[in-house]
Amino acid sequence: MNKPTWIIFEGIDGSGKTTQAKLLNDYLNRNGVKSSYRHVFDSKAGKLLREMFLGNTFSNTVEILMLCAARQAFLDETRATEDGEEYDVLIVDRFFLSILAMQGNDDADIDLINYIRGSISRGRDRSIVFHMNTSPENCKSRLVNRTIRDRIEGKGVEFHRMVFERYLALLSDEENAYQFDGDADIETVHRTIVDKTMSLLGITPGPGVRADRRVLS
Amino acid sequence: MNKPTWIIFEGIDGSGKTTQAKLLNDYLNRNGVKSSYRHVFDSKAGKLLREMFLGNTFSNTVEILMLCAARQAFLDETRATEDGEEYDVLIVDRFFLSILAMQGNDDADIDLINYIRGSISRGRDRSIVFHMNTSPENCKSRLVNRTIRDRIEGKGVEFHRMVFERYLALLSDEENAYQFDGDADIETVHRTIVDKTMSLLGITPGPGVRADRRVLS
Repeated sequence: MNKPTWIIFEGIDGSGKTTQAKLLNDYLNRNGVKSSYRHVFDSKAGKLLREMFLGNTFSNTVEILMLCAARQAFLDETRATEDGEEYDVLIVDRFFLSILAMQGNDDADIDLINYIRGSISRGRDRSIVFHMNTSPENCKSRLVNRTIRDRIEGKGVEFHRMVFERYLALLSDEENAYQFDGDADIETVHRTIVDKTMSLLGITPGPGVRADRRVLS
Repeated sequence: MNKPTWIIFEGIDGSGKTTQAKLLNDYLNRNGVKSSYRHVFDSKAGKLLREMFLGNTFSNTVEILMLCAARQAFLDETRATEDGEEYDVLIVDRFFLSILAMQGNDDADIDLINYIRGSISRGRDRSIVFHMNTSPENCKSRLVNRTIRDRIEGKGVEFHRMVFERYLALLSDEENAYQFDGDADIETVHRTIVDKTMSLLGITPGPGVRADRRVLS
């Protein structure tokens, strides 16, 4: 029932999260593990909500409810796809920790997010989490080089530092969370992530490994 | 702190809810009570969400979260207005009962809606509720005569009957809810609503009544 295994990438903007998620997805597919990369806004409602969200300013609680609606839409469409395509691994670019880190401003916000998370996640909130632990200054300088930046990415380094520190606090409460040094070069980070993934999935990399031994059920 | 007094109109589509809400608003303003009519989608986020909602089909839980986001946006913008304009009465066209009646399909949905309602309503969920008790068949025949109908209004009479029955069950649990016979003619319903409103607000209608005695504080 818990197939595919979810690996959720989390981290602040510019932390290398999406780059590493896609590199891992490519690696797994080249090595016989059926994997798919999905951004959490990859759904019909998610695309519409993201557009609304980036083009407008709303209150924090409105943002929480809209972002949770996008998570629900993601779960709906992912489940539909899971049934048909039977991936071994789904690599998910952000899920609920990002809402807690970015919109969890006080106890009422955090309680609301956690209630909805528990209500809708169907156990996916206990998935493997890979956190890109990249210094906010480093992230900010990477974002400055992007041609197109959204409303969140354009925020000051203080915002990104606050979110970064919230991530660290949140991760200490997560059961299956792993940290990766995102300040290292892309290839080094990728190799570390591959090793951890293969170990978690119970796979010895290499062409001699049978596909049916490659993924935890 | 509870000023303005909220009067929330609820009822199925075609029940005469909006017509009666606007008639009451006009009456109050003509009689020295500063009143304002607002539809629950009257906010920046509400307008955008309503457009998304009517043009697309989402899962029930996505709808719940989007509709709750619209309620939060309404509360945000209403509070901003309340501070500046100081109305005595705010006439609100739908609030949370409509989500419970239309999207409350099972216990998980109902729990989710009620949790969010309690989390965001700031006591407004204990406002006066006027329910337009109009037979679903009558509502449906009124809707058929509308030139422009939305996705919800276009649903079959079975849907409207189910929502109607859920309203009746929900209203038995509400503290300040009143039923009005929406099958009667518009003017009769209006007079009944005016009498109930004046009684609830502690006002004897007529030009001799001082404005400062007209609204419950």
